[in-house]
Amino acid sequence: MLQLPLPTSATLTAKLPILRLVRSCQNPPLRFPSSAPLSVFISNSQKPENPNVFPPVNQSVAAIVFGDGSESRLYPLTKKRSGGAVPIATNYRLIDVVVSNCINSNISKIYALTQFNSTSLNSHLFRAYSGLSLGKEGFVEVIAAYQSSEGLGWFQGTADAIRRCLWVLEEYPILDFLVLPGHHLYRMDYQKLIEAHRNNNADITISVSCALGNRDPGFGFLKVNSKNQVLEFSERPDREPLNFMTAEDSMKSSNDAYPYVASMGIYVIKRDIMTKLLTEFFPKANEITNEIIPGAISMGMKVQSYKFDGYWEDMRSIEAFYQANMDVTKRSTLGFNFYDKDSPLYTLPRCLPPTVITDADVTDSVIGDGCILNRCKVKGSVVGMRTRIEDGAVIEDSVLMGSDIYQEDWIQRCKMVGKSDEIPIGIGKDSYIRKAIVDKNARIGKNVQIVNKENVQEGNREADGFVISERIVIVLKSAIIPDCSII
Amino acid sequence: MLQLPLPTSATLTAKLPILRLVRSCQNPPLRFPSSAPLSVFISNSQKPENPNVFPPVNQSVAAIVFGDGSESRLYPLTKKRSGGAVPIATNYRLIDVVVSNCINSNISKIYALTQFNSTSLNSHLFRAYSGLSLGKEGFVEVIAAYQSSEGLGWFQGTADAIRRCLWVLEEYPILDFLVLPGHHLYRMDYQKLIEAHRNNNADITISVSCALGNRDPGFGFLKVNSKNQVLEFSERPDREPLNFMTAEDSMKSSNDAYPYVASMGIYVIKRDIMTKLLTEFFPKANEITNEIIPGAISMGMKVQSYKFDGYWEDMRSIEAFYQANMDVTKRSTLGFNFYDKDSPLYTLPRCLPPTVITDADVTDSVIGDGCILNRCKVKGSVVGMRTRIEDGAVIEDSVLMGSDIYQEDWIQRCKMVGKSDEIPIGIGKDSYIRKAIVDKNARIGKNVQIVNKENVQEGNREADGFVISERIVIVLKSAIIPDCSII
Amino acid sequence: MLQLPLPTSATLTAKLPILRLVRSCQNPPLRFPSSAPLSVFISNSQKPENPNVFPPVNQSVAAIVFGDGSESRLYPLTKKRSGGAVPIATNYRLIDVVVSNCINSNISKIYALTQFNSTSLNSHLFRAYSGLSLGKEGFVEVIAAYQSSEGLGWFQGTADAIRRCLWVLEEYPILDFLVLPGHHLYRMDYQKLIEAHRNNNADITISVSCALGNRDPGFGFLKVNSKNQVLEFSERPDREPLNFMTAEDSMKSSNDAYPYVASMGIYVIKRDIMTKLLTEFFPKANEITNEIIPGAISMGMKVQSYKFDGYWEDMRSIEAFYQANMDVTKRSTLGFNFYDKDSPLYTLPRCLPPTVITDADVTDSVIGDGCILNRCKVKGSVVGMRTRIEDGAVIEDSVLMGSDIYQEDWIQRCKMVGKSDEIPIGIGKDSYIRKAIVDKNARIGKNVQIVNKENVQEGNREADGFVISERIVIVLKSAIIPDCSII
Amino acid sequence: MLQLPLPTSATLTAKLPILRLVRSCQNPPLRFPSSAPLSVFISNSQKPENPNVFPPVNQSVAAIVFGDGSESRLYPLTKKRSGGAVPIATNYRLIDVVVSNCINSNISKIYALTQFNSTSLNSHLFRAYSGLSLGKEGFVEVIAAYQSSEGLGWFQGTADAIRRCLWVLEEYPILDFLVLPGHHLYRMDYQKLIEAHRNNNADITISVSCALGNRDPGFGFLKVNSKNQVLEFSERPDREPLNFMTAEDSMKSSNDAYPYVASMGIYVIKRDIMTKLLTEFFPKANEITNEIIPGAISMGMKVQSYKFDGYWEDMRSIEAFYQANMDVTKRSTLGFNFYDKDSPLYTLPRCLPPTVITDADVTDSVIGDGCILNRCKVKGSVVGMRTRIEDGAVIEDSVLMGSDIYQEDWIQRCKMVGKSDEIPIGIGKDSYIRKAIVDKNARIGKNVQIVNKENVQEGNREADGFVISERIVIVLKSAIIPDCSII
Repeated sequence: MLQLPLPTSATLTAKLPILRLVRSCQNPPLRFPSSAPLSVFISNSQKPENPNVFPPVNQSVAAIVFGDGSESRLYPLTKKRSGGAVPIATNYRLIDVVVSNCINSNISKIYALTQFNSTSLNSHLFRAYSGLSLGKEGFVEVIAAYQSSEGLGWFQGTADAIRRCLWVLEEYPILDFLVLPGHHLYRMDYQKLIEAHRNNNADITISVSCALGNRDPGFGFLKVNSKNQVLEFSERPDREPLNFMTAEDSMKSSNDAYPYVASMGIYVIKRDIMTKLLTEFFPKANEITNEIIPGAISMGMKVQSYKFDGYWEDMRSIEAFYQANMDVTKRSTLGFNFYDKDSPLYTLPRCLPPTVITDADVTDSVIGDGCILNRCKVKGSVVGMRTRIEDGAVIEDSVLMGSDIYQEDWIQRCKMVGKSDEIPIGIGKDSYIRKAIVDKNARIGKNVQIVNKENVQEGNREADGFVISERIVIVLKSAIIPDCSII
Repeated sequence: MLQLPLPTSATLTAKLPILRLVRSCQNPPLRFPSSAPLSVFISNSQKPENPNVFPPVNQSVAAIVFGDGSESRLYPLTKKRSGGAVPIATNYRLIDVVVSNCINSNISKIYALTQFNSTSLNSHLFRAYSGLSLGKEGFVEVIAAYQSSEGLGWFQGTADAIRRCLWVLEEYPILDFLVLPGHHLYRMDYQKLIEAHRNNNADITISVSCALGNRDPGFGFLKVNSKNQVLEFSERPDREPLNFMTAEDSMKSSNDAYPYVASMGIYVIKRDIMTKLLTEFFPKANEITNEIIPGAISMGMKVQSYKFDGYWEDMRSIEAFYQANMDVTKRSTLGFNFYDKDSPLYTLPRCLPPTVITDADVTDSVIGDGCILNRCKVKGSVVGMRTRIEDGAVIEDSVLMGSDIYQEDWIQRCKMVGKSDEIPIGIGKDSYIRKAIVDKNARIGKNVQIVNKENVQEGNREADGFVISERIVIVLKSAIIPDCSII
Repeated sequence: MLQLPLPTSATLTAKLPILRLVRSCQNPPLRFPSSAPLSVFISNSQKPENPNVFPPVNQSVAAIVFGDGSESRLYPLTKKRSGGAVPIATNYRLIDVVVSNCINSNISKIYALTQFNSTSLNSHLFRAYSGLSLGKEGFVEVIAAYQSSEGLGWFQGTADAIRRCLWVLEEYPILDFLVLPGHHLYRMDYQKLIEAHRNNNADITISVSCALGNRDPGFGFLKVNSKNQVLEFSERPDREPLNFMTAEDSMKSSNDAYPYVASMGIYVIKRDIMTKLLTEFFPKANEITNEIIPGAISMGMKVQSYKFDGYWEDMRSIEAFYQANMDVTKRSTLGFNFYDKDSPLYTLPRCLPPTVITDADVTDSVIGDGCILNRCKVKGSVVGMRTRIEDGAVIEDSVLMGSDIYQEDWIQRCKMVGKSDEIPIGIGKDSYIRKAIVDKNARIGKNVQIVNKENVQEGNREADGFVISERIVIVLKSAIIPDCSII
Repeated sequence: MLQLPLPTSATLTAKLPILRLVRSCQNPPLRFPSSAPLSVFISNSQKPENPNVFPPVNQSVAAIVFGDGSESRLYPLTKKRSGGAVPIATNYRLIDVVVSNCINSNISKIYALTQFNSTSLNSHLFRAYSGLSLGKEGFVEVIAAYQSSEGLGWFQGTADAIRRCLWVLEEYPILDFLVLPGHHLYRMDYQKLIEAHRNNNADITISVSCALGNRDPGFGFLKVNSKNQVLEFSERPDREPLNFMTAEDSMKSSNDAYPYVASMGIYVIKRDIMTKLLTEFFPKANEITNEIIPGAISMGMKVQSYKFDGYWEDMRSIEAFYQANMDVTKRSTLGFNFYDKDSPLYTLPRCLPPTVITDADVTDSVIGDGCILNRCKVKGSVVGMRTRIEDGAVIEDSVLMGSDIYQEDWIQRCKMVGKSDEIPIGIGKDSYIRKAIVDKNARIGKNVQIVNKENVQEGNREADGFVISERIVIVLKSAIIPDCSII
């Protein structure tokens, strides 16, 4: 609905060589003379009369959150859930971070696109954000990949997903789409990003991180000029070794030495530009990052960068996930601040009973709601909701994700189906856990040691209930670790 | 979790020949001697000690609603939505009927499985039933087909869908699953069905309709003995012509003349039996109706029938859908009663402004919320939410589904993107519509006639914005019918 | 409540210095040298450093809505409800207008102060606005008058009410209070009012109406200079006859001829100023309008006026209430627009079944949700939710408020308690109603005529179920009008 | 409120026949011949045809909860809140207990009558129970005392309150009222109470406690025969010393030696009986307990007792309140179980960040959500939501109620209004608190000792921010205790 007139054959010539564009973006073609950039032509109709007065973001921006995206990197935490549904910091799910950023930025139209183990994500979003906190006309709408009469299969990538959902995404007369990965940990006021985008009258604005070191977050690198305009997209910069300068430094560089900066995979794209890119110019492109963005650059569209210099963790590995949790326990100012009063983190509200502590020595740890800590010792750890730790247990530098139900409920359920004498949910008597991640509902027996005794780097022992990744033991969700096991 | 012990090799022998079972179910093998029916063995462990005291259904039953299922039959209403999301009777969606039946039967754990154009269904359920009316611990949880690390594709059928979601469906310690198609129109107290199921200590109970005439609703036919036990499943009874007796009559019949009765596709299945059927006995079966049920019968499980003699419409065709809407306007006692005070129909709550009528002559019609009726005539019609009818228009025997937005909002949105002079949403001046279904957001111009002038039986004119099915013209969602068109 | 009689000079003298201030405000004392106005001293601490950057209103403004206020004027509609709970335009309550104005102005901290028949208001607000539409940290909190350990009685007026609730109202660190009568009908973007208040760095800003004719809405009159500063407060201007000029004209007037303009009873008051006025300067004042405001003026505080020239109806009488309803049926551009898409009216969401019309001739009327109109005629009327009109009935120029329950529910309830043969809820067969207001749940028998036959101006016949006010018959809530009655 | 002084004989005589009934109830008059008891006559119309089939309680019972009632006894915790709003066990308010009992007993129509400092109660109930957990048609409706056109003042007692709200309470066609004090701590399945009431066809059923020792909970004592019928009401049994037998023992007693048992102030009263008692028989009675109940007994109505032998704490004193909190820390089976999985305790859902513990030694304590415990020691204490405890602080045997906002928010607010250097919310460095109750938002400085050093029994030092009651120090809500204070 409300589509602009079809493009003329002149504009259509850009349509075919998608892949060539992708490849050639390291050597940008500059086919469009600077005196008449295509971008002006393309986006002219949308330019507001008074460029400084924009409708409020809650009416004019829709966020598209990708619920999936880090499945392989966070495996086995993503074995039965999508990346966005992974629990973090006792009370939250990863996707809460991005949804809360949206809420705190007054963006209340949020579409969560998902297809990988989507159920846990659906369930969480449905329960946590239904009608709450989102104000009038706000929503978090989950769009799962679906079968249609056209007989298409799963989403083939981010571009394909958005293209196939355009008929839903265009329901409201918004001006810009905000495309967001759903599993990153950072706090950004998207209003400022959108303001920059609109003040620049950019077709696309890409958020770039200035503090990445030599990490490659996988969203490509951008060559940016002193006006923050993106000149080139590259999947990997060609210079070796990578010498990442901060974007700040890049401002001062001479023109021919513009460095590459790392994209965060966060895009603001004009609504009409999005529609044209997906349906007219690159109707077969599957990915925003590697196909649509370089394509738009090579067509001469106005693609801007937006520097973000706050904490940003892309959860690129189990180690990174582990470290982000450890940061919570340290209350340093370096990690993500889960306590920011001005932009709070939302999640599923709970009314659990208080945590009971019989006799615990707790150091540098965070404790979720409704735990039961008996005569135990907890040090440098994240202890998730409803965790039960028995007498004599010692937990160090670990992430316990807690349980969905109380141990007593679990015992009752077992009785209902005729079982008993099983190892109950929680951490058993005299067990010792160090530098491990224990997923939800795990049942750790007595005298268990989870210490990566043999200092294994990587190992898959799923049949035994655990995986070792980067020397961190991950006990699987609902796994049973028998009494006296040593891992 | 909470799985029963693995079956012994003795029980496993039933596992392989699924398809043979399916085929052979018209000639049931009776391999199990009646003196030791397998069912006793299988379900014994679950038999409650006091068979007359069962836990309340809201704690012990989970409903599994199939959101899809009538797509091809209700096309083109299902072009952009799943069957359950088709609007009916001005204010409702088809799936509201089944969800309301659940709520009114105190069943508050509802899983909606869906994969076909699931977005509109997701959105409706998310907004309509989040936290409302479902009481403590109640929910409507949408489970969309999802990609998983096992690399499976779309759900291959009802059995496949349930099997792949078992890990979610088993979250709560329920005793019975209630399997429900999501697009049927009827009012049933499922508590009575479940009570019968439990009092019989049945493994499976199938609801059968007694008042179908010679219709085949597609869920198969059952040969039932005088104790309501199901002896045989048949996709089609073999006797010709079909001579359907009511189940009532069947009681009086002699034993060897048990008639076939029509299944409604509504099943109560013990939790453990469901798990075993899907994972042990028939791990490759795709469909509950054609594979699991006949398989269970042939294994000698206790499969009972439950007679339902109320109004039941399975929406088998556009004609049936049209007729169900017409019944609403007649306020007869034969159709579905949308006004039943004791088991009300729930849906998305609204706060629309009142309907405005300038000067209308309205006969035998129902009018949704927020309509604007100018100097028009409406007879025997269903007029959906926010419908706008201009001066001189005449609507007869038709279903207008209304609009998602007001005409004025629509005009404003057009202006925002620089369009105007278009045909607005609603029914234009002096247009005449008879025996048609006008889907949502359609824009009918002035002096249009939609009367199936050439009395076409079937015809697909989607490019022109309509389809004719069983002589009923269906104007597509968001279609534009230019001024002075004659259809 | 809260409309205590205006203070006479006799009562004023008893009130010590406050009242002297009140009296003297017509001749402002100018006791404070212009070089050091008190206002600067008083409010200095609160002046923001950059006067053009204010925190967003949703964080920095709390609305105080007076739920009561028109009880005597709208009697008998207020016999069992406070003024804010009176139904209007089929689907709404009066207080919805002000609450919706707040929501649409991004003001989400709303305190509703109430003590007169507060139950219906409580109930409506509780059900309509709990967690919905108000966004993060938003609320409508009802503060009923309460007994306290200090042994105080009912609120003695608006100032007394706010003073006694200050400890609650100060919970959030807001900068300004917005004081609102809860029973007025108008649409105002309070953000503009607050912006003017803040840009002026005013202590108090009073909204004034420019289009009142010679009406006295009871909130006093203000003498305003060309900079919109309020020079004087007067309960009634002294010049006779009152010659109201629009505020627009006043701009052009010479300085010594500033006219009086009418206050709307809508105040923005700086938080600290409010606290000081109520607790330090005028600790015994009962009313904002007649005591606090003139007091602040005479102390030299910066009191500004804010012109509002839209539709504003203060519901000063049954006639005004009746007319406001009639305006809805006329869809003129003069009355209040209940259909404004940009600032919609919120209320309790409903999921009623559609309105059923058997054979009705409906002209210039609005019809609420869930009505049943049989073979009847409705002209120029407002027909509230669940109204049932029987065959042969004629409704003209009337306001039917509808019912809380369906007739059939009512009949069932009667049976439950052993009653029957009663006149059912709704308008009986062949009855004729003209220029009347029929309150909720009234039971009008057959062949009844409600036409004010004897053209009575005023009359109280509560025992018979009705009151006549300004020639309009008002049938009381739940009243029974026997068959064949003529009123 | 509502605990007006017991009527003296002086006041009684003014009340005509009612009061005679009250007095005479110790010598029951037996004016009605047993062959025709009044009760039969009175309640006959309501007797269901089949006495064993009753409508479900969620449709046929309305609970009336008195939000006030322990104000003087729990002072100063009730200085700014009603008894029901007093926080208990870190996460709850007292009234949550009764509301949760209702929800867990499927009673979903709950009226909370209140007039004493009602604001905090209103606010809590509004936020905690709006639409959640109460299912279809369920509600918690707060009815504050209100001014009416009849010019009545505050509620004069429980009977007066119900009488004046009857028009609201009778909105739904319920059969029985369940009258509940709102500040007691116990877990009861009211369904069993109502079942007993209905099976007995009683007019009134009174819950009596069997395990009170020699306590007088203030609801009077009942002489009960072997069939649980109440023969006499007494404010105090006449025999001295009181020799309370359990109701169990009373069964075995000979007829003329029926003992007195203590009423819990919990009544089930038939709807029609309630109406008649309040409006016809005792239209001037103010109290249910002391006037209506003895009146009904003396009229010969069928008044039954219902034995309850679980834990029941009536919060008769600060000591009792303190002890109930201490019980939570001990996890004994004697106190109230806040963790019961089958009848959970509901309250306002929260999404606070996890509790952070830097280095704490915690023994036998419960910790609420979102606390910050630095290098401190906590023993045998209840630590409420958002409590902050600084380094070196020691908390023993105390109840810290926590804060409504975080310390950092508080500091920010202070800055906003130009204050600083104040003692922040929480427990300051090196402070020592033993056997104290610290109300919400208190600001305890550094090196403070709250130990009741001089072992004072009772003392009111409100100006200094505390009260001592039964040797327990109670720091007032929002009180400031300066550095180095010793209490």
